[in-house]
Formats: sequence, structure tokens, C-alpha cells
Amino acid sequence: MIFERLCIIGPGLIGGSIARMAREKGGVARHVITFAASEASRARVRELGFADEVADSLAEAVRGADGVILCIPVGAYAAVMAQIAPYLAEGCILTDAGSTKGSVVRDLSPLLPPGVHLVPAHPMAGTEYSGPDSGFATLFEGRYCIITPLEGVPPEAVAKVRALWEAAGSLVETMDVATHDKVVAMVSHLPHLIAFTICGTADDLAEETREAVLKFAASGFRDFTRIAASDVAMWRDVFLNNREALLEMLARFTEDAHALGRAVRYGETEFIEDRISRGRSIRRGLIERKQA
Amino acid sequence: MIFERLCIIGPGLIGGSIARMAREKGGVARHVITFAASEASRARVRELGFADEVADSLAEAVRGADGVILCIPVGAYAAVMAQIAPYLAEGCILTDAGSTKGSVVRDLSPLLPPGVHLVPAHPMAGTEYSGPDSGFATLFEGRYCIITPLEGVPPEAVAKVRALWEAAGSLVETMDVATHDKVVAMVSHLPHLIAFTICGTADDLAEETREAVLKFAASGFRDFTRIAASDVAMWRDVFLNNREALLEMLARFTEDAHALGRAVRYGETEFIEDRISRGRSIRRGLIERKQA
Repeated sequence: MIFERLCIIGPGLIGGSIARMAREKGGVARHVITFAASEASRARVRELGFADEVADSLAEAVRGADGVILCIPVGAYAAVMAQIAPYLAEGCILTDAGSTKGSVVRDLSPLLPPGVHLVPAHPMAGTEYSGPDSGFATLFEGRYCIITPLEGVPPEAVAKVRALWEAAGSLVETMDVATHDKVVAMVSHLPHLIAFTICGTADDLAEETREAVLKFAASGFRDFTRIAASDVAMWRDVFLNNREALLEMLARFTEDAHALGRAVRYGETEFIEDRISRGRSIRRGLIERKQA
Repeated sequence: MIFERLCIIGPGLIGGSIARMAREKGGVARHVITFAASEASRARVRELGFADEVADSLAEAVRGADGVILCIPVGAYAAVMAQIAPYLAEGCILTDAGSTKGSVVRDLSPLLPPGVHLVPAHPMAGTEYSGPDSGFATLFEGRYCIITPLEGVPPEAVAKVRALWEAAGSLVETMDVATHDKVVAMVSHLPHLIAFTICGTADDLAEETREAVLKFAASGFRDFTRIAASDVAMWRDVFLNNREALLEMLARFTEDAHALGRAVRYGETEFIEDRISRGRSIRRGLIERKQA
């Protein structure tokens, strides 16, 4: 048994999927307890029955747990940590599922009681849905989960978090916090920022053009709206909590977009061909890596 | 029979699909003749046998045709038109499948012989493949085809081009040239420019980050590489031949991206939430229109 008493804070898409997975697979957790901020979500989780217990307070949820997973928007970590820190048991492993890792260390470390081990993690899985009904046990199968182990944390604590994600079917990788934040800024946060932006740009067009844009969106535009359909609170917090890496990648991207725009303006054929060819070669690289 | 002798210049993905469709459906064309610039492509089309005849010169291809469709990169239109204009028959309908329409009118109209009717069209369909082997008869089924009728062209000529695309299973819409170019700049050309750019931005990252980016690309980034895997000559020509509309949409987009980046930098929560929400509402709009 990896955990005797596993506490999942936030039984939404990610937390609810972890709970369902822990229920279905043997050896993950003897007892799964969860807490949701809203009374309605707690009632719904009780109805759905994917946890052994639904606590009515954060203190009650974490008390006696040997594993606590935060599955809430990263912007809520500091406030939740202030409430749970006094009740975390000695030897407890505190982990999470947030898309940023620098902010997680920044927000959780200062309040970490002695003997509680922080092991940040980021399962790279999701759908465009959210809430207690949206989770499913196989969400993490075959998807990467990045663990960012901190200095001075016992290897046994990291091993338990790794075991949890391997039980979920994930491919576990480790990385330092700063590299993680740069990589996800590029592969995920910047694409989302771009997707949200282009939807807004389209929405601002004159009424007639805008209607036609929606009508004919089935071309390239549609792929952008698919990733733009994500949870508002989650993405707001991701942007605000991976600010430096995101703004760095956005700056690189807009420089490159301006350079390509300039080449279009001045008819610089070779420059344009080179940029298109690079897109194709990156695509080929993904196909070779079976990521496409 | 819509056309007695239909000439398809460029039997690649689009031209080859039109030829196959014309073969399979009765009533489209009695005789399909095609021309490819390269000897290898002509030999391949003869092997594949999807046209009744493969001409060895442009003059031979268009001579006596009552319908001619240009299915070549829009940058090649002016040069090809100079070669075919002397051989176009009186009453012939000249149409095309290019992604830009202003440039098509600019490049074809000056050389148009009297009695030849220009009816520009844009089937909004494609795949990431190209060449004679890549086409298939059902490529246009259920996809939009935009016709941009010009002033002074007989309605019967427009009706024939409409009938061709309806036979292919397309949803035919008409639009003026300028509106077409703005709409496709937004729904297709800008998304492609962004996708090519972000692949290049990733490619320029330091080696270690770049490797990790490719490894973890399965998130948002992957959708961008899918549309970045397109034909180089086609997209180079599209960008250069829809320059004004594309640069206008790129300018709007980068302004909006900068505004969102600024909001992230200064922690303007409401602005960020508003942008994310707009992405979601555009997405919902597409789902309602069955475009998602």
C-alpha cells in the first residue's frame, strides 16, 4: 500500500480522477478522503461515491493523512496551505498536480512543518471539462507526469509519489523546477495564451466578418479553439504563477512572429520558406517520438 | 454534363481530388485532361489513371477545354496564365482552387481573353499531404467552397462552377473578394503563420529545453504542429499573396497578445479572466454551429 490515508484536496477533473484510479487499482491507498470548497461539490462527490470519505473542513481532511495531494488552481495554494499546515501529520507527504512548479515551492515551502515532505508533481493530462463529474480512472494512462524533487527531501518520499503516478499508468520523469516551468511555458502555457488571444481577436472583428469567421472556422482556427475551451480559474492562475517563463516565451514568440510578418511584407521568400520548413521538421520530430 | 472537356492544371492534392471526383460522379465532365509541370508527376498521373488524358504542355492541356481549373500555388498563376491565355477557347470558364482571391483576380484578369469567364473559387479542404498520390474523391464532401463572383461575369458561368462544387459534395457560399481574403486571413492564414512561428521558436530554444519541449509536446503544442506540417510552396505563396489582410490580422493578434502578456505581468486578474472566457464562448459558438 503506497498510502494508508490519502487526502485529495479538490475532487475535480484531476483530483476526482486520482480518487477513482486509487479505488480501482489495488495497492494505492487504503482510505481515500477528499475535501471540496463548495457544499454542492461535497454533496456531489458523496453521491458519486468515488471517495471513502468527504470531509467538511480542510483540517478534518488532512488530519492523520500520510499523503495529501493539492488538486486546486495554483493560485489557491498559499491560502489552503495556511489552513492545513497546523494539521499535517509528521512524516506526511505533501504533493500536488499543479501546472506550475516554481510558484508551488514558493507558496508551500515557507509554511511546511518540520517532518512533512514536499514533493511537487505535474501530471500532463486533462480534458476541457471540470468538476466532480468530469474525472475518470484512466485519465493519466500513457501520459507524462513530471516530478520536481527538492533538495533535502528523503528519496523514499519521492519514490512514493512516483509509485502513485506509475500506478495511474503515467510515464514519470523528473526535472528541476526551473526547467519544468520553462518547458511547460513553451509546450502548454504559451499555446493556451495564443489560443485565448486569437479567439478574442476574432471576436473583436466587425460583425459581418466575425460571423463569417465563425462559419468558416473549420480550417486552422478550430484547432486553436479546442485548447481555448479550458477552465478559467485554472488558466488564470497558471499564467499568473508562471509569469517569468511565460513572458519570456511570449517575447521570443512575438519577436519571431514579427520577423515572419516582416518577411511577408517585404517578400523575403527564402526566410518564409525556412520558417515553414522548420514547422514541418518539428512535426516530423514529434511523429518520430510518437507524440503526434 | 457540366463540362465537356475539363482541364485540371496541377494534379496534386486538390487537382487530383477534383479529377477523381469527376471520374466517380456522373454528370461532371465528359473528358478530364490534366497537366503537371514535372515529367515525374505526369508519369505518376498516367500510372494512377485518374485522368482521361495527361497533356505534355499547357497549350495542349487547355486547347478546346470549356472548363479550366488552376490547382497550383497562387504564386505561379501569373506565369501559367501568360502561357495558357492564347489557347483558351471562347466561352471557356477559367476557375481555380487557390486560398487567396484578390491576388488571383490581380494576376489573371489582365491577360483574360475576351469571351473567357473568370470565376475564382476556394474549396476549404485539404490534408497535410501533397502530390498526385494524395488526392481522393471525397476530399470536398461536407466542406465549404467559397466562390467570389466578379462583376460582369455571366451568371451561367458562376452556376457551372457552383454545380461542380455541389457535385463534389461541398457547401457553396459566395462572397466578395475582399471579404474572402479577410476571413481566410483570420481563420486559416494567421493560424498557420502562428503555428509555423511557434515551431521555430521552440526550435531555437537551448538544446536541453528543446529536447524536453519535443518530449512533452503532447499538450497544447501538438495541435499547433499539426497545422504546421503543410506544403511549403503553397503556404509561402498564400502569405505573399494575401499580404495586406494577413498583416492586418497579425497586427491585431500581436496587439492582443501583448495586452494579455501585459495583464499577466501586472497581475490584472479580471482582464485575464475575460480573455479566457472569450475563448470559451467562441468555442461554444463553434459547437453550436457544428464546426467544432
